[in-house]
Amino acid sequence: MKKLSVIGSTGSIGTQTLDVVSAYPDRFQIEGLAAGTNLELFLDQVKRFNPKKASVGSKALADEIRPFLPQGVQLFYGPEGLIEIAAGTDADTVVTAVVGSTGLPATIAAIQEGKTIGLANKETLVTAGHLVTSLARDKGVSLLPIDSEHSAIFQCLNGENKSDIAQITLTASGGSFREMTREQLSNVTVEDALKHPNWSMGAKITIDSATMVNKGLEVIEAHWLFDLPYEQIGVLLHPESIIHSYVEFQDSSIIAQLGNPDMRVPIQYALTYPDRWVSKTPRLSLAEIGSLNFREMDFIRFPCLRLAFECGKIGGTAPSVFNAANEIAVARFLNREISFLKIESIIEETLSRHKVVASPDLEAIHETDRWARETASLL
Amino acid sequence: MKKLSVIGSTGSIGTQTLDVVSAYPDRFQIEGLAAGTNLELFLDQVKRFNPKKASVGSKALADEIRPFLPQGVQLFYGPEGLIEIAAGTDADTVVTAVVGSTGLPATIAAIQEGKTIGLANKETLVTAGHLVTSLARDKGVSLLPIDSEHSAIFQCLNGENKSDIAQITLTASGGSFREMTREQLSNVTVEDALKHPNWSMGAKITIDSATMVNKGLEVIEAHWLFDLPYEQIGVLLHPESIIHSYVEFQDSSIIAQLGNPDMRVPIQYALTYPDRWVSKTPRLSLAEIGSLNFREMDFIRFPCLRLAFECGKIGGTAPSVFNAANEIAVARFLNREISFLKIESIIEETLSRHKVVASPDLEAIHETDRWARETASLL
Repeated sequence: MKKLSVIGSTGSIGTQTLDVVSAYPDRFQIEGLAAGTNLELFLDQVKRFNPKKASVGSKALADEIRPFLPQGVQLFYGPEGLIEIAAGTDADTVVTAVVGSTGLPATIAAIQEGKTIGLANKETLVTAGHLVTSLARDKGVSLLPIDSEHSAIFQCLNGENKSDIAQITLTASGGSFREMTREQLSNVTVEDALKHPNWSMGAKITIDSATMVNKGLEVIEAHWLFDLPYEQIGVLLHPESIIHSYVEFQDSSIIAQLGNPDMRVPIQYALTYPDRWVSKTPRLSLAEIGSLNFREMDFIRFPCLRLAFECGKIGGTAPSVFNAANEIAVARFLNREISFLKIESIIEETLSRHKVVASPDLEAIHETDRWARETASLL
Repeated sequence: MKKLSVIGSTGSIGTQTLDVVSAYPDRFQIEGLAAGTNLELFLDQVKRFNPKKASVGSKALADEIRPFLPQGVQLFYGPEGLIEIAAGTDADTVVTAVVGSTGLPATIAAIQEGKTIGLANKETLVTAGHLVTSLARDKGVSLLPIDSEHSAIFQCLNGENKSDIAQITLTASGGSFREMTREQLSNVTVEDALKHPNWSMGAKITIDSATMVNKGLEVIEAHWLFDLPYEQIGVLLHPESIIHSYVEFQDSSIIAQLGNPDMRVPIQYALTYPDRWVSKTPRLSLAEIGSLNFREMDFIRFPCLRLAFECGKIGGTAPSVFNAANEIAVARFLNREISFLKIESIIEETLSRHKVVASPDLEAIHETDRWARETASLL
């Protein structure tokens, strides 16, 4: 029986994690669930999975949901509640599916308790990769990626020596605007941007996919997760998103992971690693797909990806600024305050005003995040 | 220092094995070399790699080469000489690159001596898979494939559980005639057949590639090597031959091995497994290749592949008949005695006249081979 806690259970990764759990009710036990504000769904989940501990976003929300909880469920709330679910249960593995920087202290607390991390919270490695990976090493804790690209790389490294890696390559669909020139990009609308060619996602991630910021953040995460210099991390345009990512070894062999796009596959892999359990995801037929296409990444067409590599190499607080400035810029674009191309100039300008702190602690990361958001909102 | 013997050192796999050895003179030591009739090349190899033991095809050839050998090299000849090189040296690993059924007793002798096998001799598994794999299991000997497809599967299985495999898929370029209908096939010439689209190979293997017999033999080898039923082995047309083969797991993930076509990569992998050493093979650029294409295998277009699956499932001496009848048929086609499509009807007719022996010993296999050759030469 695998004992799990899920922080961020009502989001996209959280609900899909619980889908995986539902498929194997005899092999998983949910010890804790934490959500933000979606009380209706959260209550369903608590009733269905019967965790010992549950947490919601605030005291007010806790008071609202308390009368409806099944008996015996301990209720928590706020950042402390998140930490309680991440670190204060009997779970062996914690899925960190919460969105945003609130995921970071909870993830660190879980690592300190020696729990295996199913890592979906982006900020954990983007803003605090140096702290989190060294703590995980000290505690002997595995960070198992939940994300199709990193899971792909992780799978390709099975049974291999890290020292034999020549390069890892993350594939990128290119997003909604992949066939447009930069001139055409200047006039795109929010509605245009939200049509992702390969799958439907949330608004934020769809924009991040079109700007290639999402891939940039993945590059920074890959740097920390696989302990590789940025020179050994590549990005390749692959419109079909069938090859999720691949590893090239020094003997020139490439090992790639392929599949139909379904987040439940990497989620399940993180939960069952090193085993693979049967999944209901439709089998991939390469004959049916017929052809896979590839194009060199264009760093002029996608300047945010270039910026991400630069921030990654600079390190310290630079990736935090990149991430926070982007979040504000995307929110402003979705709010129709700024044009699509202004997203990248806001990120670049915020970065240019930032004085990088080399090895920031959690407080410095937090302060950088706050500063970058404020700065980006005024540009 | 890795100690090697190579049987079949002057053939295509043999010379490429010695290329790999040459790239790492401080990490490999050649204990024994055996060749057939190419004395000039063999003498070069013996002088260059300085084995303790050497063997050639016959007493006459041994007498011819003896005066030119460096001092201290022990010379052997014939089938016994082949066994001496395979089993009678200090080598840890024996590369079985000899072509034809003479490779079988030598390979068995090497396994009996507990030597790791770098397996390139096709007959070993096609005709005696049941004997060889059970002996290897008993002796705790690894059979490491030297062949791009099987090496690819082997690499994809690194760190994975065999029980998690859903299917393995061997890719097939489709050979010289892949765009022709069966009507067009009836008139093709030897010259047409020898133009392989992706690389230049020997005449025999080029024809086997066009008839898909080669892929059929690989399917039978894969059955034994990976201990999988034929229902879990697929073949996919992939004209670019960049994905060398892949494994689909029960969680729907596919792990594939890719690379530029260069036999030295799987050879080196078999010699350095589980490590990977730097190779000089040009790096694969998917962006440069641009697109990979796939088509369902057509068992009506390629009846020899259907026959191979049938022979594999029947087992016993059936695969031996398939292999021997094909060798004769191809020789007759290359000799302009028969048409291209007659190759498949000779194989089919020989098989229909054969009374399968269920678990043949080496003698029964030998007798089957002789009978099938005789039968096929008269059809």
